[in-house]
Amino acid sequence: MREELVRRARDLDAADPLAEYRERFILPENVIYLDGNSLGALPTATPARMQEVIRGEWGEGLIRSWNDADWIGAARRVGGKIAPLIGVQPHEVVACDSTSVNLYKLIAAALDMRAGRKVILSEPGNFPTDLYMIAGLERQGLAERRLAPRDQLIEALDDDVALLLLTHVHYKTGDVFDMAAMTKAAHEAGALVLWDLSHSGGALSVDLNGCEADLAVGCGYKYFNGGPGAPAYAFVAERHQKALHQPLTGWFGHAAPFAFSDDYAPAPGIDRLQCGTAPILGLAALEVGVDLVAEISVDRLARKSRALSEFFLECLGEWGLDLELVSPLDSTRRGSQLSFRHAEAYAICQALIARGVIGDFRDPDILRLGFAPAYLRFEDMAEAARHLVEVLESGEWKKPEFSERAAVT
Amino acid sequence: MREELVRRARDLDAADPLAEYRERFILPENVIYLDGNSLGALPTATPARMQEVIRGEWGEGLIRSWNDADWIGAARRVGGKIAPLIGVQPHEVVACDSTSVNLYKLIAAALDMRAGRKVILSEPGNFPTDLYMIAGLERQGLAERRLAPRDQLIEALDDDVALLLLTHVHYKTGDVFDMAAMTKAAHEAGALVLWDLSHSGGALSVDLNGCEADLAVGCGYKYFNGGPGAPAYAFVAERHQKALHQPLTGWFGHAAPFAFSDDYAPAPGIDRLQCGTAPILGLAALEVGVDLVAEISVDRLARKSRALSEFFLECLGEWGLDLELVSPLDSTRRGSQLSFRHAEAYAICQALIARGVIGDFRDPDILRLGFAPAYLRFEDMAEAARHLVEVLESGEWKKPEFSERAAVT
Repeated sequence: MREELVRRARDLDAADPLAEYRERFILPENVIYLDGNSLGALPTATPARMQEVIRGEWGEGLIRSWNDADWIGAARRVGGKIAPLIGVQPHEVVACDSTSVNLYKLIAAALDMRAGRKVILSEPGNFPTDLYMIAGLERQGLAERRLAPRDQLIEALDDDVALLLLTHVHYKTGDVFDMAAMTKAAHEAGALVLWDLSHSGGALSVDLNGCEADLAVGCGYKYFNGGPGAPAYAFVAERHQKALHQPLTGWFGHAAPFAFSDDYAPAPGIDRLQCGTAPILGLAALEVGVDLVAEISVDRLARKSRALSEFFLECLGEWGLDLELVSPLDSTRRGSQLSFRHAEAYAICQALIARGVIGDFRDPDILRLGFAPAYLRFEDMAEAARHLVEVLESGEWKKPEFSERAAVT
Repeated sequence: MREELVRRARDLDAADPLAEYRERFILPENVIYLDGNSLGALPTATPARMQEVIRGEWGEGLIRSWNDADWIGAARRVGGKIAPLIGVQPHEVVACDSTSVNLYKLIAAALDMRAGRKVILSEPGNFPTDLYMIAGLERQGLAERRLAPRDQLIEALDDDVALLLLTHVHYKTGDVFDMAAMTKAAHEAGALVLWDLSHSGGALSVDLNGCEADLAVGCGYKYFNGGPGAPAYAFVAERHQKALHQPLTGWFGHAAPFAFSDDYAPAPGIDRLQCGTAPILGLAALEVGVDLVAEISVDRLARKSRALSEFFLECLGEWGLDLELVSPLDSTRRGSQLSFRHAEAYAICQALIARGVIGDFRDPDILRLGFAPAYLRFEDMAEAARHLVEVLESGEWKKPEFSERAAVT
């Protein structure tokens, strides 16, 4: 069985037009990395580029690099490169701060644009930080959180809703929202929509402007391979930019930061989303990752992502493993991941990691396997499936060391 | 004259207990860097440490490094190292986000703690982002900005003032506030105080707890040498931590981020100031810079900083240069900088840069020279003074190329 699946996998790898890109990443030996949806792998070009930025631009150029190395344009430049990968124009995206901070900016901006409405509508079980960022605004007396299950969201859209805040691909299950339909429904209720693209940007085809989306945020350290805690990005549709007022009115979002005036005046376009001094080291690493995704093309990545996860399920089937899949079976309806429910998911995940198969656990009972398509092979799928089968059939996961919870799970 | 001043400078360098630390920084050749107050120089240890973090922790360790390399503790660890350098306890500081974002958190938190009061009092001409961060809260209807000149601040403290927001060392003039006196006055009026330490942390002795300060923020990329756009830091006095509610309630500030619950519950201590995923690359570079400052000791740095600027003024005096000093003449009343007023400050600054003497210009008419004491020599003072004299006496600054304004001035 193993030989047969590996043989088929190798044939698929031989025919894979993206196979060559695996070399563009530095991956540890003897590891099958199924967690690129949590932290993307290191692009081969990143270490040298970072040395250039650190030794050359910072060490030699010092303060002059704000002009000479265009540090001052970095946030807009990197944002502009992300833009076509999520279906929008370069001047509609900026790379800055964290996803959480950008959520605050845009939720608050939506409340400002929809004065009189206070409700932020989302679904229970959305990624925690999306829900948490509403809490601060609630305590400030500015927002009211309303949660409705996925199938009741549209009826929960009423005249009080300022903003519908959804994550395009669910972090736990991988379910994909119908972006066009949900956006349309929100607009019909007079609300704006903010899409969190953290689990779709760089892995799935996203067409924000085709769906007439208003606002979006996304993560730099997952499929964009920007490094741990990389800067995030934020999108504001051109039609909203002039009237957009976000409350984190720092000097980098000012129309003339180096005029050092006492009064705030927002920059004319997307730059008004910037706040503090741009994080140059983080942006430099992110730019390498984004360039690589752009070179490969998101459509090709999305296609391979579906093929990888379909083959993985096929392998499990060949092995006769019956595990509860919580992700949609239809690969066009899920993100680049497969999630399985098992009461002992934590220990199973740890046992897999001990074998070099790195996935992750999501409380309380989800084993989440991500298939970052830029650097995974079909052979990795066959081998990962075998490891999963062996861990479960041998009961290996029952070893006590696999149940000890670490700080980060 | 030149020889005599250089000889004296070399004697001072020979007797300088911090002279050896210059080698701990990578500095470009033929440059006298008087802008460490804007962007600190590159520590010699940083490139290798960053390679370790990038290739080892990220590339090899991947997601496992959140536990194995203690990425999860990085924000608190780096904050804890900054703490003794500003006179507080390790659990009172966290390194995160930008100075601007941290200002928003703490201004908003102060408004929450002083419910019923809406005024944020500051001075005109404070660093722009400090003033701008109030603007967003004003538009949200939560704050009201009041500005009073430095000598009228105390009488402007009334029952409406929630927070006195001041920068310890003025970015333009270098004037130092009497932290103890201003804090006391604010407390007597029932207000809290938030100190911006961007131009004092790492260069001057700061005693926040000795002054009973409530809140503080500061910058990682100036005297802490953390690199361009490094993460900033935030301080909350222990006595306020339990009641502190800041509105950027992201998942990294949650009591149990990996429980993935729908509802926000703030972490028990200073961690509630964190918001999004910690910027690991930025924190790693910052940690190297902070370790170096701690090794040298802030008191020794402060002493040398005063000696450097005093000697620089002495050199100008020897050359008979009469330039309007806007910084206090008393070196104990100024930060690690000297600022001069001249109608042609921009062109003079550019002419100096062309000679390899890098200072900066602050709109509209300030030539600002910073004396980062960890890597500057007394000989640099003598030579920089000579260049300044020559630029002014020769009229060299009148060349047209020196008046062309760059994006970042």
